[in-house]
Amino acid sequence: MSKIISILETAKWLSENDNYLIITHRRPDGDTLGCAGALAQGLRELGKCAYIFENHEVTPRYLPFVEDYTAPADFSADQIIAVDIATTELFTKSALEYKDKIALCIDHHNSNTNYSELLCIDASRAACGELIYDILTDLAGSISKTTATCLYVALSTDTGCFSYGNTTADTLTIAAQLIKAGAPNKQLNKLLFRTKTHGRILIEGMITSNMEFHFDDKVAIVKITREMMNSSKATEDDIDDIASLPGSVEGVGIGITIRELSSPTDCKISVRATPPYNAHELCAKFGGGGHITAAGASIKKTVDEIKADLLDELKRNFDN
Amino acid sequence: MSKIISILETAKWLSENDNYLIITHRRPDGDTLGCAGALAQGLRELGKCAYIFENHEVTPRYLPFVEDYTAPADFSADQIIAVDIATTELFTKSALEYKDKIALCIDHHNSNTNYSELLCIDASRAACGELIYDILTDLAGSISKTTATCLYVALSTDTGCFSYGNTTADTLTIAAQLIKAGAPNKQLNKLLFRTKTHGRILIEGMITSNMEFHFDDKVAIVKITREMMNSSKATEDDIDDIASLPGSVEGVGIGITIRELSSPTDCKISVRATPPYNAHELCAKFGGGGHITAAGASIKKTVDEIKADLLDELKRNFDN
Repeated sequence: MSKIISILETAKWLSENDNYLIITHRRPDGDTLGCAGALAQGLRELGKCAYIFENHEVTPRYLPFVEDYTAPADFSADQIIAVDIATTELFTKSALEYKDKIALCIDHHNSNTNYSELLCIDASRAACGELIYDILTDLAGSISKTTATCLYVALSTDTGCFSYGNTTADTLTIAAQLIKAGAPNKQLNKLLFRTKTHGRILIEGMITSNMEFHFDDKVAIVKITREMMNSSKATEDDIDDIASLPGSVEGVGIGITIRELSSPTDCKISVRATPPYNAHELCAKFGGGGHITAAGASIKKTVDEIKADLLDELKRNFDN
Repeated sequence: MSKIISILETAKWLSENDNYLIITHRRPDGDTLGCAGALAQGLRELGKCAYIFENHEVTPRYLPFVEDYTAPADFSADQIIAVDIATTELFTKSALEYKDKIALCIDHHNSNTNYSELLCIDASRAACGELIYDILTDLAGSISKTTATCLYVALSTDTGCFSYGNTTADTLTIAAQLIKAGAPNKQLNKLLFRTKTHGRILIEGMITSNMEFHFDDKVAIVKITREMMNSSKATEDDIDDIASLPGSVEGVGIGITIRELSSPTDCKISVRATPPYNAHELCAKFGGGGHITAAGASIKKTVDEIKADLLDELKRNFDN
């Protein structure tokens, strides 16, 4: 079990130690990377030595915020810190060697497994970056433009540019402080939220123009075939949150994405539901599961066979 | 010419007068309507009589925020206030009778034509709602949940949920205060930014799946035909800001939308450009104009003829 420590205790611990190595999670997002960049920069500004452990999964979009801090191969850390990582299962392969050596974890996930010696956690925060902001301002009294920029990336990406349900008054208050400290929100928003890749726009076009509606438009179904992935040249990054698309249509309660993987009979479904509909219950019928609002299943049938099976199952539910 | 007055002077004037009629602009957006709703509610909470003048162009999405304040036919106002209206040319037809009788205009447009007796203006504000917030908090010390909800609609819609370049630290600070006062940002964001109509998703699918790229993908061209509008059943509301779509693709400097209007040879083009490209210069060649980043033109040719002409013109520019 971790020892839970407050923001103030975390700041004090950081001021009393040195030679930090910061770990980010698998499939790293803007929050884990923005936190790592901000923490490394903030600690360096205080005269400390701080590096970020290599993460080969960093996408080009986020590289500028972390690349200057990458630890050299021969760096010997005194203290290892994990940011925005709920469990060691989310460590990258190369970071696994550190999984029993984490001195401090800073996190906002309710599901944190207490794997670190010290744990600074607040699950009410929209982004882990909010905690890093509190810690760094407590440490230094203010934050630099570089630190503010990394933290803006953290806050804005974890809240869908302040549009998701996790966004609080605190999130916006901190974001305002980051802009005052010099975070270039106009440029960052353009980069992070107002630019689509070619692959994304092409596959989104294919998906939405073939979206099917059933049961008085309460159910929307889209498919992503290997042919669509090939012809759009879309990457996994490009289709990252695409399963939310059918569920975003007005009046739709169940949004289903059927995706063809390695072969025509190797598929997965992703379901998004708005209560009273239940994504987990539907996916459980197909050997999968998840949460009420988001669930999935792997199915060894073709896209069209799966669609027919889903419609049969849904018909039974809608008939009742 | 209007007499320019400060936030404090505006609050004082509002406290000294009564029987207000509030005017909103043509094709009303979230800012003009949110401002009107907030001002009517805030004035009523102070014991004043305040109504919003009928605006038949209010879309269903925004109706809940203004319908309770609609002026009865026999209401006789002492003072008429315009919110978020730069010029009387933006008055609705039925509001034109008041165009020379506006006692106060509250606005954030640099292009305001000084048509009102008194004018409270700050063009540095992202939304007119920021000014209404300052005025109402000055008047009453705090704002109610209902007022905060209307103002959240104003601020969030004029900034694309805080993603546009006009968003400032002040915008986010005020938005945080609105959430603290009870504005249900989670529900409002879902309604305003995370839900697409059927028409929107269908026409977006058609548009994006047929998007063309030219000149090393620096130029993206889309077309909207009458057939596409008919088959998608998209309304004018649904395609409101769709001209920004081709310009949102990574690497695209000039995004062009060619739209067929009343007949196959009645078209308009909308151009969005990122410097060094110039939307105004391109549209001026076709008898139109506008700003460097956004411009348009009406052209009496078919969509395909216009596309060919545009490509010829662009080729000359790219060759130089």
